[in-house]
Amino acid sequence: MNFMEEKIRSEGCVKDGGVLKVDAFLNHQVDMELVENIAAEFVRRFAGTPVTRVLTIETSGIILAGAVARELKVPLVIARKTRSMNLDGESYVAEFLSFNHKNIKTVVVSKKFLHKDDKVLIIDDIMANGCAMQGLISIVEDAEAEVVGCGVAIEKSFQEGADRIRNLGYRLESLAAIETMDAETGDVIFR
Amino acid sequence: MNFMEEKIRSEGCVKDGGVLKVDAFLNHQVDMELVENIAAEFVRRFAGTPVTRVLTIETSGIILAGAVARELKVPLVIARKTRSMNLDGESYVAEFLSFNHKNIKTVVVSKKFLHKDDKVLIIDDIMANGCAMQGLISIVEDAEAEVVGCGVAIEKSFQEGADRIRNLGYRLESLAAIETMDAETGDVIFR
Repeated sequence: MNFMEEKIRSEGCVKDGGVLKVDAFLNHQVDMELVENIAAEFVRRFAGTPVTRVLTIETSGIILAGAVARELKVPLVIARKTRSMNLDGESYVAEFLSFNHKNIKTVVVSKKFLHKDDKVLIIDDIMANGCAMQGLISIVEDAEAEVVGCGVAIEKSFQEGADRIRNLGYRLESLAAIETMDAETGDVIFR
Repeated sequence: MNFMEEKIRSEGCVKDGGVLKVDAFLNHQVDMELVENIAAEFVRRFAGTPVTRVLTIETSGIILAGAVARELKVPLVIARKTRSMNLDGESYVAEFLSFNHKNIKTVVVSKKFLHKDDKVLIIDDIMANGCAMQGLISIVEDAEAEVVGCGVAIEKSFQEGADRIRNLGYRLESLAAIETMDAETGDVIFR
């Protein structure tokens, strides 16, 4: 087991409906040493890949994506889920179906912060049905920039997202891929 | 001028209604070198102050608070604005009036992640009317923990928040305190 799998085993919590709670170390309370280890591992895996921007979506991917952007010395871009009154000007917009909230969400990035020919590494915390990631990918492509890779700390391989992203031809790296998990026993089996 | 004031002068944008847009370097696109400099400055100012947890509120304070928590080697706690279906168990809850959105918001922290006797440093990006900060303070006090300090990258001194927090007896450090700003000319005057 690697450090990510160990953390999930020791501090994650399996809930009904395919929900993995990581709020003790990644989402609500954040273990910053773990974040540094995750960022270092993404940097190692994407070594040699040119990256000009790291892109994530608010909220829970921000801390990981920021650590990766810092290491790569490139700007971080945080896609917003709402068109706030403070986000004026022209924007790239995509819609996606949220797994946890079972509704349609909007993802928005200002055209000022994503340019043609940018080489974009997309980072998020957890991949479930992959819809948020697909929204981000479609925004990068609308900008005529290139998705050079996608990284997630945790991939729920029993849901369709990871396969879908890989089948579309994108390189997806995950630090822990969950094959099955059981809310009754709390067991988590990694791929 | 310090580095924060220079960044606001060069890349910030003053809008009508007392709005300062920092989306080029702090909110939407994030300059990670700036984030590191801000974190280092907070660590310098709060040197000698015991801190067991850094607390912030989603979304835009996360990246700064994370960098400070990493430097201090303590956990980061991200207060949520909604009671999501994934946030079960008992929580501390406070309500506050949002400046930008002109509505009542809820801030929630799980009781698992804030304990009696914790020494809490609260970090956020911008202080306007101080209501989000007051919500966080009331949560820390509900937990019988101690607010050892508050740090914001930018204080809008022409609004009442900073004075209110200081008048309540809390130590508030800001890296740039804006005395006045003019949407027509774009001028920003620091205190």
